[in-house]
Amino acid sequence: MRMTNGLLLVFSGPSGVGKDTVLHELLHQNDSVRLSVSATTRSPRPGEIDGKDYFFVTREHFQEMIERGEMLEYAEYCGNYYGTPAVPVREWQEQGLDVILEIEVQGGAQIKRKHPDCVSVFLLPPSLEVLESRLRHRASDTEEVIQKRMESACGEILEAKHYDYLIVNDTVDHAVEQICSILCAEKLRFGRADADIERMLNYAETIT
Amino acid sequence: MRMTNGLLLVFSGPSGVGKDTVLHELLHQNDSVRLSVSATTRSPRPGEIDGKDYFFVTREHFQEMIERGEMLEYAEYCGNYYGTPAVPVREWQEQGLDVILEIEVQGGAQIKRKHPDCVSVFLLPPSLEVLESRLRHRASDTEEVIQKRMESACGEILEAKHYDYLIVNDTVDHAVEQICSILCAEKLRFGRADADIERMLNYAETIT
Repeated sequence: MRMTNGLLLVFSGPSGVGKDTVLHELLHQNDSVRLSVSATTRSPRPGEIDGKDYFFVTREHFQEMIERGEMLEYAEYCGNYYGTPAVPVREWQEQGLDVILEIEVQGGAQIKRKHPDCVSVFLLPPSLEVLESRLRHRASDTEEVIQKRMESACGEILEAKHYDYLIVNDTVDHAVEQICSILCAEKLRFGRADADIERMLNYAETIT
Repeated sequence: MRMTNGLLLVFSGPSGVGKDTVLHELLHQNDSVRLSVSATTRSPRPGEIDGKDYFFVTREHFQEMIERGEMLEYAEYCGNYYGTPAVPVREWQEQGLDVILEIEVQGGAQIKRKHPDCVSVFLLPPSLEVLESRLRHRASDTEEVIQKRMESACGEILEAKHYDYLIVNDTVDHAVEQICSILCAEKLRFGRADADIERMLNYAETIT
């Protein structure tokens, strides 16, 4: 039977685009997909669960993981480390499960450099007007804060050109369906052919 | 609204693998897919319909089409020309329809050279044993003829390594589903982004 490693899927998009909702539905519909959990040195916020929201680790532990090459990517932000531990990702992949990394664009670029065989998907809003309206409804911020957020979101959107696939989040179901098609199609790519197919091609060579 | 050209999909596989059955079901399930009709200079066989099985044309007409660059690919075989007229393919694509070329491996390679943006899919049997059994059940040929066919089929299978995607024809429905995923995913590739998305990326640049 076919038994191949699962895919590593980098998933990014500007804040306000609806990444969490899409991933929640994707995980709900597919039991062969897992969401990677990040590690951080910051303190848990009320309600956050260790191993679910984040792996909460000490600064020393995080630095050891970096030194041992156990971080797929990491960054320091406001004095705290954030990163993706490699071991659980690899273990899931070896079980044939597809692993999603929900990650901002710089982290996505780090992963792509280290793992060129990963698949990267960027989630876009239906339009910039829709994105602005979503950002406005999120919180009662001042006009200035909203404009700063829009600028930052547009900066992220420009990074879409470094991604393999672009999905427009017109409806959650449609976006989920498109991610499933990407996962299915990518597994059929020649370069990812499983052991059974390789054996068939090798055997065919002996017959000609 | 999104209005992009349909895809050009090159579809190949060894004889006996079940290409016709898979394509018949794909066309039945999808009204946005069309099957390209080849042109030939050979005479129609009983029951063959002009414009459905082939476009039956004169040798002079075929040569004119070659000279005018109106053939996506062509070959001469047993004294007759066979080829893919470019105009109907382009017209369908411009209407947003995906066009499938069911074509042998040499023709597929010609198309890929001329149209590097085409998507190529190779249909494999579940195993060489299954393929041999299908070839045996096709006609009551001598052992020698069957072995020659197997050799020829294996020669074709070796060309699979030049294709973008490999599909195993374990069941017709599964193969059709996988082709649909490939068509869906390929349309989401960054390089094929439609005019709406390009406008959004350009507009985002003016905001940052």
